[in-house]
Amino acid sequence: MSDLQTLLEAYFEAHQADMTQQLRELIRIPSISQLKDHWPDTQRVLEKMSDLVSAYGFKPEIIQTPGCPAFIATLEVAPERPWLIVYNHMDVQPANEPQWQSEPFEPRIENGRIIGRGSTDDKGPALTILHAIHCLHQAGLPLPNIQLVYETEEESGSTHFGWFLDHAREKLQNPASILVSDTIFEGDHPAITYRLRGLLRAEVCLQTGTQDAHSGMVGGAVSNPLNILIQALSKCVDAQGNVTIPGVLEDLTDLTDVEKEKLAITSSIFDVEKFLNDNGNPVLYTDDACELLQRIWMRPTFEVHGFEGVQTAPGSIKTALPYAVKAKVTMRLVAGQDPQRVAQQLESCLKSVHPQIELNYQNGTRACMTSLENVFIQQAIAACESGFGQTPVFVGGGGTIGALPEFERVFPDAPLVLIAQSLMSDGYHAPNENFQLKQLHDGFITMAHYLSRIADVHTVA
Amino acid sequence: MSDLQTLLEAYFEAHQADMTQQLRELIRIPSISQLKDHWPDTQRVLEKMSDLVSAYGFKPEIIQTPGCPAFIATLEVAPERPWLIVYNHMDVQPANEPQWQSEPFEPRIENGRIIGRGSTDDKGPALTILHAIHCLHQAGLPLPNIQLVYETEEESGSTHFGWFLDHAREKLQNPASILVSDTIFEGDHPAITYRLRGLLRAEVCLQTGTQDAHSGMVGGAVSNPLNILIQALSKCVDAQGNVTIPGVLEDLTDLTDVEKEKLAITSSIFDVEKFLNDNGNPVLYTDDACELLQRIWMRPTFEVHGFEGVQTAPGSIKTALPYAVKAKVTMRLVAGQDPQRVAQQLESCLKSVHPQIELNYQNGTRACMTSLENVFIQQAIAACESGFGQTPVFVGGGGTIGALPEFERVFPDAPLVLIAQSLMSDGYHAPNENFQLKQLHDGFITMAHYLSRIADVHTVA
Repeated sequence: MSDLQTLLEAYFEAHQADMTQQLRELIRIPSISQLKDHWPDTQRVLEKMSDLVSAYGFKPEIIQTPGCPAFIATLEVAPERPWLIVYNHMDVQPANEPQWQSEPFEPRIENGRIIGRGSTDDKGPALTILHAIHCLHQAGLPLPNIQLVYETEEESGSTHFGWFLDHAREKLQNPASILVSDTIFEGDHPAITYRLRGLLRAEVCLQTGTQDAHSGMVGGAVSNPLNILIQALSKCVDAQGNVTIPGVLEDLTDLTDVEKEKLAITSSIFDVEKFLNDNGNPVLYTDDACELLQRIWMRPTFEVHGFEGVQTAPGSIKTALPYAVKAKVTMRLVAGQDPQRVAQQLESCLKSVHPQIELNYQNGTRACMTSLENVFIQQAIAACESGFGQTPVFVGGGGTIGALPEFERVFPDAPLVLIAQSLMSDGYHAPNENFQLKQLHDGFITMAHYLSRIADVHTVA
Repeated sequence: MSDLQTLLEAYFEAHQADMTQQLRELIRIPSISQLKDHWPDTQRVLEKMSDLVSAYGFKPEIIQTPGCPAFIATLEVAPERPWLIVYNHMDVQPANEPQWQSEPFEPRIENGRIIGRGSTDDKGPALTILHAIHCLHQAGLPLPNIQLVYETEEESGSTHFGWFLDHAREKLQNPASILVSDTIFEGDHPAITYRLRGLLRAEVCLQTGTQDAHSGMVGGAVSNPLNILIQALSKCVDAQGNVTIPGVLEDLTDLTDVEKEKLAITSSIFDVEKFLNDNGNPVLYTDDACELLQRIWMRPTFEVHGFEGVQTAPGSIKTALPYAVKAKVTMRLVAGQDPQRVAQQLESCLKSVHPQIELNYQNGTRACMTSLENVFIQQAIAACESGFGQTPVFVGGGGTIGALPEFERVFPDAPLVLIAQSLMSDGYHAPNENFQLKQLHDGFITMAHYLSRIADVHTVA
């Protein structure tokens, strides 16, 4: 065992009870950002963290936003060291599922697990990182200068995170990299997430009249806007789920050889049967694990979710034709795609079918991607091997972590490094959410190794 | 003035007051088939007609059906004469529009019009035909043997008319032709309707899973059944409203030269501006009158009316993917198309996009078409010229008169002759419905001439 490892094990042994107690206190604050009644709890949880990090030498500050508050805590260990932003969130999912076997906000420990809402998403992981920092700092070992950045709106879309970064910009140092733990293991393999898709929501609208028309009296002469929208939407995606909007795939970059290699490894451990079971046995566009993962992580989607202005009454078919209809669509975007440009390509595609079609959309969210070649990723691999005892797999996320594209926008040169500490099987976003004491240990060790390894890394190699 | 014309004018002069009084009495019975509370009135109106036609030498019989009753009244004038079925309906539309300026079921006469629900649809026209028969019969002039066939479910879809024809088949003679007046003038031109479209209603269903899926977690790998249905539906009709289901246009017959000639005449008097105003100024697939009328009368449609199983909440776009969706579609059919065969062609087209798509449909309604070359039509033209003082135009109907495909089914050799006596401007299916005394006169004269002219016509020329 290395000297560092010995030190870390000793620290964990000495502080495990503190960490557990701190996590229990954090879980007791029901900081549910989706429920307005609990907004005061988002303030309370940050006040609790302020107390905690102050004791470890940080200078904390709670920053009010137009929504729930955010938090910056700074620990400068040496002026010549690089800066690291550590991102976690202190808000939690609602916990009204009937399957909870105990009070979700009254944590209990059972079979080596701390059970309670927020235990693994994201309060437990935030504590492992905090203690990893404290351990190295207390021992006088190398680590970067740190700014903890916590938000309390992650579970409600990180609505004001961009606003917060812009308004708190002068309080933030330029980070060399950003560490994030808000992701999950792939099965029971530690995982580094290096891709997350972006999102564009849009309404596709067409009005061709001012009153319903009768299909018998005028059908065939009077335009049916729903027929036309269907024709336009059919140009955007095919029946195999491939996006077919002209030009929209041009900005996608090919997978690098390293990505292909990592994808082959991840595919080999990906369980398609389990995926089917977990998702209600849906019809898949592909049964091949590698193709399936590529489709979720590395390809854009175009999904139609519904319509307004059309008949919806169960079992009834009236012969009336609609005159103004809207389709509800979303697109998941991947690295290389600019949401604004995609929206324009979509609009052109739709208008090529009918010039009166209108597209309403808000600013979309860009995809995020971290180069697998950069030095922070190399250090994260080694850290996972030390902490979790396994080489991590490389994964993507089909969805979006709202804060990350905002970090990329404000700090375009700082790689995002996402090291998972949570397991899906531990009730991530589910009833009886829990954090294993083993994860607490392994996460702590991993994070400490990582911090130690990047203590002097200023730039992307 | 011919002898016949002189006789008819004298009859009308002598019986106008009776006819008006009879129409008032019929209007006073609110025989609204769409409203269950008024179903007893559908029986009462037929009892009233039984009294009336008995006085004119008919043998009436009211036939109960699983819905509202029907009626047959027979007048055999000479065994060697051909049989004619005269079809009218004695039920009426509801009359709850606030724009009524007087009680809809308390008829009044104003400015040469009898105002009240059912006056022009279809009680007035039924009376003109009845008196035309009585006039000729009383005077000992030639006319066919007659069977009046009235139903009281026309305004609610003629649901049981096929049942009635099948169950009363032995009471009906084989007719040489069938006379119908349940149609309207084209503007102020007398009109002979020679085409009516059929109808097929269907649900297009696709289930690809058992629970909603999250577009971020699994989108791109898990099938979106709404995307697939859109792709399938897009193969059925293009953005210009043309049906594109493979094979479905093969059974359509080309327009004959006579049809083209008649269509050119009708198009020349068709007012596209008025059509736009009457329909809320919709976007049209064509601005050309001839093309527009062809599209409504002579071409099939494929209309998507709505969906089940999709998001419909105004202003909201959730990222959930549906797992089981239905589209509500209808097709208007034209002469030559068999609804069953069309449904099979549609199903093949849909399944070619995804084999799990299912089509649910009931028996459709066939289109009706009367050859313009047959002798009954020739006599109808001459009769209109005598009665209305104008050569009639030939028109189609984009919708369906439910009884007529049933007549075609049971009596395939008997041409349907549809001579309009009503004007759209007289409140057909609208508030303040009225029947002009001039229409009463002209309709009576026209019908009498027509009956006289077909008195000895047994077969189609």
